Amino acid sequence: MDPEQMLKVAVEEARAGLAEGGIPIGAALFGPDGELLGRGRNRRVQDGDPSMHAETAAFRAAGRLRGYGRTTMVTTLSPCWYCSGLVRQFGIGRVVVGETRSFTGGHDWLAEHGVEVTVLDDPACVELMTGFIAARPELWYEDIGE
Amino acid sequence: MDPEQMLKVAVEEARAGLAEGGIPIGAALFGPDGELLGRGRNRRVQDGDPSMHAETAAFRAAGRLRGYGRTTMVTTLSPCWYCSGLVRQFGIGRVVVGETRSFTGGHDWLAEHGVEVTVLDDPACVELMTGFIAARPELWYEDIGE
Repeated sequence: MDPEQMLKVAVEEARAGLAEGGIPIGAALFGPDGELLGRGRNRRVQDGDPSMHAETAAFRAAGRLRGYGRTTMVTTLSPCWYCSGLVRQFGIGRVVVGETRSFTGGHDWLAEHGVEVTVLDDPACVELMTGFIAARPELWYEDIGE
Repeated sequence: MDPEQMLKVAVEEARAGLAEGGIPIGAALFGPDGELLGRGRNRRVQDGDPSMHAETAAFRAAGRLRGYGRTTMVTTLSPCWYCSGLVRQFGIGRVVVGETRSFTGGHDWLAEHGVEVTVLDDPACVELMTGFIAARPELWYEDIGE
C-alpha cells in the first residue's frame, strides 16, 4: 500500500473529527501487508480526554500486539513529542506524515533513531490544520500544551 | 508536599494494578499546591489497552487542563519514551521517579530539556518491578514493545 493510500484513511478520521467539533487530526496503524490494524482521531473534545491524540487513538484501536517493527503509523500531522515517544518506545518501523507546516513535532528525531519517515506535504492536510488553527487557536494550543 | 508523600499515591496505584493481575506501575499528577489532579495505573491487562501506561492514565484522569508547568508527575518507574514524550509535550515541570533500576526510560532526556527530575530509588518500587518482571516477563516485554 502506498503512503498516499494510507494517508486517505487518516484524512477521513481528521475530517470526521472536525465534523464532531473536535481537533482535525487523524491517524491509522497499518500492518506489514497493508492491512489496517487500527484507526483513530484526536478525542480531546469528543471524550474530554487529553491523552487521546490521533496516533494514540489509532494505537489503542489496534489493541494488544507484539512487535511493531513492520507496522506503519500514518498521521495527518507531524507527531508531537508524546506521539513520537509512542512510536519510538514501541518500535513502530515507519511513519507517514501528511504535513509538517502547521506543526513540527518529533519526526526528525524519529528518523535519527532509525524510523523510516515519509513526509507527504499533502495540501488537504495543510488546509485542514491551518483552517482549524485560525478558527480555534485556544483549542489548538491547549492540545499541544502551549 | 514532599516527593516521598507523592510517591505513596503512585505505589498504591501500582499495588492495586498488581492485585488486578495487571502491570504494577502507578502514577499521579499533582498541582502546584500539592493537590491531586489525577491518579492512575497501567491498564494493558485490565482494559486490553496498550495506550494506558500509568503516566498517561494519571494524565487522562486529570482531564482537560491548561498549563502543566507547575504540575508534578510522580511515577513508580522511570518513564518510557512514550510517557517521557507526554511530559515534554505538555510541559509538565517536574517528575518524581520511584526507581530506575528495573527500567531506564527518558528521565535523563527530560532533565536535559529542563524538567526537574527527582529519582528516589525507592526499595518498594524496585521490589514491585523486579518481582513482576521475574514472574511475567512476556507481559513486561509486551508493555515496553520489546
